[in-house]
Amino acid sequence: MRISVFRKAHFNAGHRIFNPAWTDEQNFKVFGKCSNPHFHGHNYELIVRVSGEVDPETGFLIDLKHLKAIIEENIIERYDHKNLNAEVPPFDKIPPTSEYICFEIWKILRQILPEKYDLSVRLFESARNFVEYPSLG
Amino acid sequence: MRISVFRKAHFNAGHRIFNPAWTDEQNFKVFGKCSNPHFHGHNYELIVRVSGEVDPETGFLIDLKHLKAIIEENIIERYDHKNLNAEVPPFDKIPPTSEYICFEIWKILRQILPEKYDLSVRLFESARNFVEYPSLG
Amino acid sequence: MRISVFRKAHFNAGHRIFNPAWTDEQNFKVFGKCSNPHFHGHNYELIVRVSGEVDPETGFLIDLKHLKAIIEENIIERYDHKNLNAEVPPFDKIPPTSEYICFEIWKILRQILPEKYDLSVRLFESARNFVEYPSLG
Amino acid sequence: MRISVFRKAHFNAGHRIFNPAWTDEQNFKVFGKCSNPHFHGHNYELIVRVSGEVDPETGFLIDLKHLKAIIEENIIERYDHKNLNAEVPPFDKIPPTSEYICFEIWKILRQILPEKYDLSVRLFESARNFVEYPSLG
Amino acid sequence: MRISVFRKAHFNAGHRIFNPAWTDEQNFKVFGKCSNPHFHGHNYELIVRVSGEVDPETGFLIDLKHLKAIIEENIIERYDHKNLNAEVPPFDKIPPTSEYICFEIWKILRQILPEKYDLSVRLFESARNFVEYPSLG
Amino acid sequence: MRISVFRKAHFNAGHRIFNPAWTDEQNFKVFGKCSNPHFHGHNYELIVRVSGEVDPETGFLIDLKHLKAIIEENIIERYDHKNLNAEVPPFDKIPPTSEYICFEIWKILRQILPEKYDLSVRLFESARNFVEYPSLG
Repeated sequence: MRISVFRKAHFNAGHRIFNPAWTDEQNFKVFGKCSNPHFHGHNYELIVRVSGEVDPETGFLIDLKHLKAIIEENIIERYDHKNLNAEVPPFDKIPPTSEYICFEIWKILRQILPEKYDLSVRLFESARNFVEYPSLG
Repeated sequence: MRISVFRKAHFNAGHRIFNPAWTDEQNFKVFGKCSNPHFHGHNYELIVRVSGEVDPETGFLIDLKHLKAIIEENIIERYDHKNLNAEVPPFDKIPPTSEYICFEIWKILRQILPEKYDLSVRLFESARNFVEYPSLG
Repeated sequence: MRISVFRKAHFNAGHRIFNPAWTDEQNFKVFGKCSNPHFHGHNYELIVRVSGEVDPETGFLIDLKHLKAIIEENIIERYDHKNLNAEVPPFDKIPPTSEYICFEIWKILRQILPEKYDLSVRLFESARNFVEYPSLG
Repeated sequence: MRISVFRKAHFNAGHRIFNPAWTDEQNFKVFGKCSNPHFHGHNYELIVRVSGEVDPETGFLIDLKHLKAIIEENIIERYDHKNLNAEVPPFDKIPPTSEYICFEIWKILRQILPEKYDLSVRLFESARNFVEYPSLG
Repeated sequence: MRISVFRKAHFNAGHRIFNPAWTDEQNFKVFGKCSNPHFHGHNYELIVRVSGEVDPETGFLIDLKHLKAIIEENIIERYDHKNLNAEVPPFDKIPPTSEYICFEIWKILRQILPEKYDLSVRLFESARNFVEYPSLG
Repeated sequence: MRISVFRKAHFNAGHRIFNPAWTDEQNFKVFGKCSNPHFHGHNYELIVRVSGEVDPETGFLIDLKHLKAIIEENIIERYDHKNLNAEVPPFDKIPPTSEYICFEIWKILRQILPEKYDLSVRLFESARNFVEYPSLG
């Protein structure tokens, strides 16, 4: 009985889309106003999807209180009210695009969750722009 | 031309997360305040996904008026304004977790829908906690 | 410079609409399936509106961290995962309709908030049914 | 590093569900009030999903400004504030059901997007009724 | 104890913004693509606000099952899946703008609701454009 | 026939809650992590409410295309993808709290809108925290 369980969370962060290996001109040409050196920010919404087999006794795939605490301690405390470029590695070295932020969040959670679970993460930069890693489609 | 059609519905129900094979202490240890013997409840949101081939003449995969009626008669009438533990089997015997409720809803709809359709169900216990059976990811 | 500040919160609770001064027949006649003796429940959403003058130095009407804590400690801890009829007075004596729940929440917050603030509360029993006390319209 | 990027858009359109190869009676029998000859309409919401490999230098799968412009120029300008049956082929010949509209939108975008990307489209006729082509489930 | 109770409903309709007392040129000049003679449409969302004194015995301002039925029978049946200009007077004579539709809905409900209740209506043409009559602000 | 018309818009911006007249210690003591010197940010949602008399010929209070353009040119272009403290006066001198941002937006729009209209603005810093100026409650 394979099932998925989802938990939604959110954090607010500042960033600029900026590749430190490039000149400012290259950054502005590719990233436009998103590379504004003064930074802007977003209310990020996060949906963590965990898949696997339900425990027949508890009727849980994973205890959501536990999953909520994992996300809170490892993702929200790390990202919330932070400037991603200045305070959250590896975004001092690579651009904090939604794609890369989503991938970093997945890597952190993947190390913590037991191997028996599959994991996929959706990250909403806004209600109109969002990403999913790994892609299920 | 394989396509999916989705229909959203909702019901309100009372429950407690409780395994009748366990002692009250075990239930409280595992399920915490969700096992409150006085019951609490939720506004459940349901998204039913039906997949298959479009009928070339009608341009429909399935008539949504028909799907809406199936959900209304078989799920909403059974679950809405009910206490799941006390009034909706098999939740007298197994804990009414979102995982098990979702699985029961899928089993009921699976028996009614013609075999040519694939079926998957998402159940939202709240905007932040939801499940999908069978898992597509 | 009069302004309003809003804080949204939520809780899950069980209830039945039931007036203990009436017979079961009267209750069923007036309240229908909402008076189901086995209880059902809702995800309640709450919007607290506080109005008054902005502090010119902080630029705050009220510190939202403070307002959030007041709501958490006085409302959410009291109502969340509770059976309102059985566990939360005065709903042992009066029917826990949205109107009366909203009024009770307002009374609790009114006693705590300093007098210089005006207060109004919206309570959503579902996305389609909600109430506001005191009414601003 | 395979990822999906999503972009949401919307348009308003008029339509009637009508198969011109049938008599009016057949249309009314199958489609009911949706075949009203005077037309009705919807606020359609569209979610375009593009999947593939992230560019390691930009951290983008696809520049969302570019994807937004593609959707605007090829879908929104074609469908927004239009009567689908009267003004947007092939809906003079086939019924403008959500299934067929979604499929047409996919065909238009598929021709424009580079082959390296996979593409799937969700179309919401309302918050309760929506479709996905090609189906990922 | 003055309170407001809200009930949300929706309908889908077709229209064009068109004043029959004007020439087509005048209509196009003022209303632009919204005056498209082939009609387009919307998913309208409606929030009905009823205000007054709570009945101390029931704890209700108004029975929401009753209010829901009033809206269904008098508004939804009249507007849903209709072409407003062609099928719903007075929109054969005046432009079906959100302002005028909202005003008409208010007039219909005002005649039905007992005088002891105050009434205000919000009509959403889309998530971004909406109106309220009578204005409370 | 007094009515209100609402238009929703959004912008993304970076900020820190910081009063330059205070020491860093005072700022941190009052504003906590919101005063992080590296800046964070939000997706701000804005609802502009305009009230007055409907024009009987057009059926409009105000042409929403016109109101949308006013908001776009005067608010969105000024605030979107900006660091409020560093780039948008007067937030170099006063803390960019939601209260003060809302008040500034109101002042800008008030100067542009004809006097016959009343105006009120709601600003959402997140789905849970928002403000309204001038307060209607």
